[in-house]
Order: sequence, then C-alpha cells, then structure tokens
Amino acid sequence: MPGTDFLQLDPAAAPARGLTDWLTAAVRAAVLDGRLTAGDRLPATRTLAADLGTARGVVVEAYQRLVDEGLVAARPGAGTVVLPRSVAVPPRPAVATPAGPVRLPVPTDRPLLDGVIDLSPGVPDLAAFPRAAWLRAERAVLRDASAADLGYGDPRGSARLRGELAGWLGRTRGLQVAPEQVLVVAGVAQALALLAQTLRSRAAVAIAVEDPGSRGAREEFVHWGLRPVGVPVDAEGLVVPALPAVPAVVVTPAHQFPTGVVLSPARRRELLAWARDGGGLVVEDDYDAEHRYDRAPVPALQPSAPEHVAHTGSTSKTLAPGMRLGWLVAPAGWDADLVAAKHASDLGSPALPQLVLAELLRSGEYDRHLRRVRGRQRARRDALLAALTRFLPEAQVSGVAAGLHLLVTFPGSDADDVAQAASAREAGVVVHPLSWHRTTPGDPGLVIGYAASPPDRLHAAVERLARALHR
Amino acid sequence: MPGTDFLQLDPAAAPARGLTDWLTAAVRAAVLDGRLTAGDRLPATRTLAADLGTARGVVVEAYQRLVDEGLVAARPGAGTVVLPRSVAVPPRPAVATPAGPVRLPVPTDRPLLDGVIDLSPGVPDLAAFPRAAWLRAERAVLRDASAADLGYGDPRGSARLRGELAGWLGRTRGLQVAPEQVLVVAGVAQALALLAQTLRSRAAVAIAVEDPGSRGAREEFVHWGLRPVGVPVDAEGLVVPALPAVPAVVVTPAHQFPTGVVLSPARRRELLAWARDGGGLVVEDDYDAEHRYDRAPVPALQPSAPEHVAHTGSTSKTLAPGMRLGWLVAPAGWDADLVAAKHASDLGSPALPQLVLAELLRSGEYDRHLRRVRGRQRARRDALLAALTRFLPEAQVSGVAAGLHLLVTFPGSDADDVAQAASAREAGVVVHPLSWHRTTPGDPGLVIGYAASPPDRLHAAVERLARALHR
Repeated sequence: MPGTDFLQLDPAAAPARGLTDWLTAAVRAAVLDGRLTAGDRLPATRTLAADLGTARGVVVEAYQRLVDEGLVAARPGAGTVVLPRSVAVPPRPAVATPAGPVRLPVPTDRPLLDGVIDLSPGVPDLAAFPRAAWLRAERAVLRDASAADLGYGDPRGSARLRGELAGWLGRTRGLQVAPEQVLVVAGVAQALALLAQTLRSRAAVAIAVEDPGSRGAREEFVHWGLRPVGVPVDAEGLVVPALPAVPAVVVTPAHQFPTGVVLSPARRRELLAWARDGGGLVVEDDYDAEHRYDRAPVPALQPSAPEHVAHTGSTSKTLAPGMRLGWLVAPAGWDADLVAAKHASDLGSPALPQLVLAELLRSGEYDRHLRRVRGRQRARRDALLAALTRFLPEAQVSGVAAGLHLLVTFPGSDADDVAQAASAREAGVVVHPLSWHRTTPGDPGLVIGYAASPPDRLHAAVERLARALHR
Repeated sequence: MPGTDFLQLDPAAAPARGLTDWLTAAVRAAVLDGRLTAGDRLPATRTLAADLGTARGVVVEAYQRLVDEGLVAARPGAGTVVLPRSVAVPPRPAVATPAGPVRLPVPTDRPLLDGVIDLSPGVPDLAAFPRAAWLRAERAVLRDASAADLGYGDPRGSARLRGELAGWLGRTRGLQVAPEQVLVVAGVAQALALLAQTLRSRAAVAIAVEDPGSRGAREEFVHWGLRPVGVPVDAEGLVVPALPAVPAVVVTPAHQFPTGVVLSPARRRELLAWARDGGGLVVEDDYDAEHRYDRAPVPALQPSAPEHVAHTGSTSKTLAPGMRLGWLVAPAGWDADLVAAKHASDLGSPALPQLVLAELLRSGEYDRHLRRVRGRQRARRDALLAALTRFLPEAQVSGVAAGLHLLVTFPGSDADDVAQAASAREAGVVVHPLSWHRTTPGDPGLVIGYAASPPDRLHAAVERLARALHR
C-alpha cells in the first residue's frame, strides 16, 4: 500500500473511481485551511503519481483544475506553486509572541528606527565574521570527516576541537590542560547554566556576582535556583574583602563587564586566597580577553589555581554570538557532574560547527582573524575616544585598554543615567545606562560599545550624545 | 606597551639586554611544560617581532637556537613547528575519562573490533549524509545572511527555519502551526529536557513512558527529577488503560522504539481521550515517522488535539545525530515556560546550522534526500528480512513497515536475550537485547538496526547471528 508524505495522502482512502476528484479536493482543502501557503511547491507530477501508485495523468489533471480555480500556478523552472489567496480565509492561528526573557547582554526592547546608531555593549562587529574562511573550513570538514564524526558523539565535545582548544588555551591564555579537561559548551551562558545546576545539586543556594555586572547572568542564576549576591566593583575590580560566605563567585578578570576594569594583581591574589582558604569556586568568565590594544595580555586566573578556578570563554565576541560555541575547563572534582548536566541538556554540541572551529584553530585562521579584527577595533576605539574628547570633554573614560566597550562617567555629577540614555535615544543613539547593570545604587555612567560601528558613525553618535546631554 | 597572545609574552618583563635569551627561554619552558606540544606552530618571525616591538632578528635568532636544541624545526610551507619530545618529560596532567552517561539510544560500551558488524538500532546511515547539498546550502547562507542573522537571536530559533518547519510539518505531518509556535531545539533529547524542567516547575514528580522504551529518555527524566513510570506496550502500542495518574506521557506513535509497533487507531482515540478528560500532556516523539516503506504515512497525533499534544522531532535519524537540531511544537500554555527554559540553557541554538537546514527545506533538497535514503533503506530492510527468513526461520519479525530497525522474537522461547546478544557479539555481530529497553520483565527479543549496513553485510550478520543462536 503506497502513499506519500505530501499531505499524508493515502490512495487507499480514495474512492475506487474519481481519484482525480479526490486529489483535487485534498490539495484544495490544504490550501484553504493553511497547511499549504503562498509559494509552497506541489510535488512534481511524476513523483506524486509514483508515490500514489497512480497514472501521471491523474495528477496532471488535478493540478490543472487547481490552476483553473486560481489556487496554484505552473511556474517555469519552479513547478507548480501555491498562489497568494486574494479572498478572506481563516488566518492561521495567531500566537502571541512570548515576552522574550532578557538576553546576555541586555537587549534593546524596541526595534531601532532607521538612522539610529546602536552602541549597545556586548556585540562584536558582525560584519567582520570570516565568511570565506568559515566556508573553506567547512568544505575541508565535509571532505574529511568520518561517518562516525556525525554520529552520537562524546557529550564533552569533538575530540578534535578539544585538542585544538587545549593547545590554543595553552598558547594564548597560559592554561595547562589536557584535551580531556575541556568541555565544549554552547557559549558562556551554557557554561554558567551547567555550573549553576551542579552547584544546586551540591546544595548551594547563592552565588556571588560582580555589581555592576552582567544582568543576563544574574537572571540565569535565578532561573536555576541560585540567588545572585552582588559584590562591589571598584577601580581594581571585584572588592574581594566584601565577598560573602558563598560557595562560588563569577568574575570577569580580563575586562570587567561593564566597567572595563582589569582585576588588579593584589585582588587576584586575594581572590585566589579566598578560594584556597574557604574552598570556594572561582568562575573565570574570560570576557573580552582576546580584545586588547595597548597593554600586554592579562594572564588567565586559572593557571594560578587550576584546582579552584573554572575557566570559561566563547567565540561570541570573536566570531559571532550566533555561533553558540564555547569552552569550560573546570577543576577535576567538577568534571563528571558537568558532563552529566551537559548530556542531560542536549547530549552534546552540534558536530559540524565544532569541527569547523577546530579546523580554523588548526590552520591558524582563527588567530589571523583575531589579529585582523583587533586592528580594526583599535581604530574604532581611538575614533570614539577622539570624539569623546572633542564633544564631551567633561567625561571621564575608563576601561579603554581592552574589550569592545568603554565606560563614561561624569565625576561629581548626580545625573540619572537612565534619563541620560533615554535622551540619547531620542537624539538617535543607543547606549546603556550603567545602572541597568547594577543591583545596588551607585555612580551614574554610560556603557558604550564601539566594535560594531565604523569611525564616522562613532563620531556622529558622540556628537548626538553630547547634544542630548548638554541640552 | 605592546605584547602578544603567544604565551602571553610581555617584553616589559624582559631584561633590558638579552631579549633573545629571554624569548628562547620562554618558548623552551612552554615546550617542556607542555603548553606547546608536537605539531604546534610558532608564530611567524615577522608577526611575533611586530607584536613584541622588537627587531625581527631577535626572533629569528631565538628560533634558530630552539632548532639547534632539537625542540622545534623549520618546515617548508608550515613555518616553525614544535617537534615530538624524545626524552621523558612530565606528562600533561592525566585525567580519568568520566564514565559516559548512557546516550540516546543505548551505546556500545566497548570499542568494536575490526570486522564486527554493528546492528545497534537508532543510528541512521551516516555515510548517506548529504555533504554536497549541505555545503551548497551553507555557501548560500554565508552569501545571503545578514549580520543580524549572526547575532544574539531569538531563543526560539531563526525565524527563517521556523517558517520552513511550520510549512514542512504542515505538508508532511499534517500540523497546522504558525512559525511562532515552533521552538527550535537541540534534538528530541533537549525537547524532553525542556518539557521535564517545565513539568517539574509545575510540581510534577512523575512521567509515564513506554515499556519497553528508550532507556536514554528514562535516564534523562531521572536527571531532571521526574520519576519515569513504565506503561506496557503490546501489539497495538501503548496500553492506554494502564496509564497511571501522571501529568504527562511520552509516546512514539509512528514507530514505537524499540518494538516498531504503530499506535493503533483505537489506542490513539483512547490516548487523546485520556489527555482531554484528565488534562494530561501527551508528548509525541515523532520517532522514525519519515522512514516508512510500504504503508501510507501515519498521521501525527498533534493535529487531532493540538491543545493536549506536544509534538517533537529532529534531524537525528534523517541527516545525522551529530546535527543536534530538532523542533518542538507545544500547546499554547506551555510556550512561555519552554522558551524561558531554552533561553536559560543555551540562549538558543546555533545560527548557521539552522539557516542551512532552512535552505535545505526551502530548496526541496531535504525532501529529495529523504526520498533517496528511503529507497536505500527499504532495500536494506528487504535484505535483512530475506536473511532472517533463510537463516532464522523460527524467528518472528515485527515492526518492519517503517523505521530503521526491527524486532525479532522467538515465540514460546524462554531464552535470555542478554545472553543471546552476548553470544552474537562473540560471533561478530552487535544487536540489542530487548530487555535492555525494559524496566519490567517481559518476552525476550533482539532489536536489530539495518540502516547503516549494506545488504551483503546484513546477510553476513544474520548468518553469524544464526550460528550464535543455534549453537
């Protein structure tokens, strides 16, 4: 008893005579109730006839009737396609778009009008994504991958990628890790989710976070049942002596989000002592470590205390956030629980993008990309600094030596930074008020991302910003 | 103050004189302590010199010394690479491989010897993955994608893919869904994880599952804090009257795993009545629905009761499990919680593979692939059936009309199917004992997958199997 996936047509359900009528009615019904919509292609007559075990003439005749009814049309080269319906028909069920939870980083809620310049922090220059290199690497992967590479894989990730990452983390971030210690994750957000689940399973109820810090990370911890406890950040980074009694703390030592501060050597020592003395876990979000301009790289924390630090990073700021591809290196006692959590979440990350990233690392293309992008971003940062000096000379700028954003504050001002950001938006430029990223009151400030805008746009944006603030 | 990511070398830390000595020592230390390993490339001399703000001659000289020491070698076309170390050096930290949790489906724990034929169920023919079509689609995606397509996206998935899936699910599975109702997930495993989390947040403590049924799914529910309650499966599928008082049940109506039974029309009606009367959720795992050979397609359950059925499927059995790409269509009241759970897990699935699948659906390439694969799989199933008839005439075979595996039982036998599978393995063929997939005792059986083996291998495998069972 043959049949076809197309509309689940079953010729056994058709009358003994009148197959053409039956087929015509079935397709007509699908067009009218919305299962087929404008632009959908009907199967080729030869194919559908074979599937239905009928003569091709039956299908040709049915299609012709539908053409006559104005429901479909034969298009040269495209076969028979469904036409837009000109009469009122019941619409497809309307579904309210769920109120999107806040993303990492805080998203713009309203669509941007034309001409508005978006300087939200946390987004790289998506136009710089290395499309040609990615396609070349994908071609190599599809040529060389074994069939087993495409099967149910190790939940920890592809062995090839973990090997490349272990080498790359060693060369560029000083981590001494074996490939077996690297867990491939869907970005830092998933690394934090897996750590949060593991902490919860060990009876943790709270986790310390930087304040100001990532609002998305705080909300994620709440989802997983951990209470985020804000710890102040000053000019040296996290104020370690203010750490409460919690089993873990998340820090961004290389370029604090959103202040851009680098964790000072003294604070690094204090933080590692806190972990050693109390047995707490330091989660090192290696945020923006790859983007540094006029200073030597800040070494990662993890090599100083691998048994106390979980190190995580991703390609979200180096390639694109849509990659959802990152890594997590945790102390030995955490491995099994984290792998179990990863397995229970998604069985492991997709194979092909992992193999492509491995190929980009192996060939050196990833490092060449970082180098190219760094030069461009430095020029953008310099353009932003020049514009700030010219149009907002009273502003104090910090966090400029690295990263994709900087922080502007106004010493002695008691301005409302939310109101400032709202005025800026009216003037056609989007920046983040620092207080969006705080849980407790503090000095006002504006967080300005510069990676995604060329110098002339940055110049124009700061001119608008100054007009708005000086009004 | 310049610097380089390579080993985080900071020239400011170097002595005023002796930069060559310093650089040589730094690279030597990295080779000896394992941060650089055999095959790693050193940066080009010109690049490293520029990064360090030093003369190129310094780097050339340092590299030459390392060559003299036998640590690195200059390779034409490949630059300077680290050599394998011939002397004993402290190994990288050894890490025990965590005992891998059971995958979906149950994996083979031991590596297969050469010549062993693996007929484990649940794996498609990975050699059939449409590499050329995937690469073509990826090229089109990388050419046409906007920068925003690569950014932080909608956690529900790419609008383009959800639109294509809504159309495809309508055409081939009869679902009437708007794109907004489709949630893109990392395979059915993630769909079950998100549903489990949502059920738990609504105070559920148990979920009904088929018995025999997927062991991986049962273990996943346990991880998420839901107790899986086995419900018997007979020749009509799930025994609905045996359903306990639970808030949800997971079924594989199109081709039950592992028995291959199709849920009968009477049982479908009973199951939907159970959901309507008691308010329970039916989770429809549309397992193997695309793979059917000599029967009309079984319609999905979801269109009969969209307010009571969550429908999920994936590309794991049509493209490859390593894709980790699937879909979930849930009743309206579940949407917001499921999207929040997806967002908290990974912010959303990776962008590029979603866009590539959308392109394969749009171009009709996905359907052509299914058609091609179906013809090949039918031939394999026929070869397996012929071999079973010849070598194991006493076996009763079921579940043959669809899917990628079938079930062999021996009426009247009280054999131990675990022992049978062990004998088969010794004879060089891997099959699953039915009891692996049971939680309560029942008739013995062997589950045999045929998608991944050509006809002659299937013939040889059954010959071996018969030898083992007749011994």
